[in-house]
Amino acid sequence: MSCANDDLKALIRTIPDFPKPGIQFRDVTTLLLDATGFAAAIDRLAESLPVKPDLVAGIEARGFVVGAALAQRLGTGLLLVRKHGKLPGETIAEEYALEYGTDRLAIHVDACAPGADILIADDLIATGGTALATVRLLRRTGARVTGAAFLVDLPDLGGADRLRAEELRVHSLMAFEGD
Amino acid sequence: MSCANDDLKALIRTIPDFPKPGIQFRDVTTLLLDATGFAAAIDRLAESLPVKPDLVAGIEARGFVVGAALAQRLGTGLLLVRKHGKLPGETIAEEYALEYGTDRLAIHVDACAPGADILIADDLIATGGTALATVRLLRRTGARVTGAAFLVDLPDLGGADRLRAEELRVHSLMAFEGD
Repeated sequence: MSCANDDLKALIRTIPDFPKPGIQFRDVTTLLLDATGFAAAIDRLAESLPVKPDLVAGIEARGFVVGAALAQRLGTGLLLVRKHGKLPGETIAEEYALEYGTDRLAIHVDACAPGADILIADDLIATGGTALATVRLLRRTGARVTGAAFLVDLPDLGGADRLRAEELRVHSLMAFEGD
Repeated sequence: MSCANDDLKALIRTIPDFPKPGIQFRDVTTLLLDATGFAAAIDRLAESLPVKPDLVAGIEARGFVVGAALAQRLGTGLLLVRKHGKLPGETIAEEYALEYGTDRLAIHVDACAPGADILIADDLIATGGTALATVRLLRRTGARVTGAAFLVDLPDLGGADRLRAEELRVHSLMAFEGD
């Protein structure tokens, strides 16, 4: 099947066995290096949104790239969702599962106004662990988290479906099946 | 003295004693959250550049924000300068000093063409350790690194002067003296 974004998909590099044997790593850095591809990716994501959010929340670290570019394109502010311990002000944190153990994401407690409409942004959605932790974290502040934007979806890993079950609209430009 | 960017400087939050006693942490997250301030900051940085670079190189992690927004504004690609071990392809790395010990930054070996004109981007320039490591790293590929863009300069720590000694043009929007 030919898709509208095949030109962008061709700019994603696949690196076998990273970070461990059996994983096909979908590397977005080659898309970001391409001026035309990067601009088109952000334009198309922005144009797919039904409404402009109040804020874009970028998830550390590659989500800062997608989030900042989208916020710049949409004319919104950018909220940084960081690894625990990185933010200087008072924070709240939320745990998420890693393959072995857990980690935590944090935001400043005063980062968004109650009721703010927030779009979360990352480069790729796989199982959705960090995205779902981000949704829980933002909702604890009273924010409405209504959408999520990604360059790449790995649909077989179910993250996008888990976000839809949380009433988010999920926007992605391309999917790699069978990952 | 009143400066052209006092409106943006007022959006930077100062957090005393982070990450340790005696440090005044200049927190850009409050500027990024402000839609008008974030857009104005990127516009003004972009307008201060005498030429459009071939690529913007963003330094992990907050440099991804400034780098991605600038690349989007300028219509260039974005090169990710990452902590060692994060990039999936073949990399080269460069060491820089921390207060205790050292750390390494890395780029993909094929991230830029020899002769490419590169602007490095980060949120803040202090002593310049990571920025100078980035310059060395990029120049090993044959790239020309001709400029650096920051939201905040801490001039008393000397990083901007060290970059100028490496023949870079340094662009920043605001300075905090006495840090």
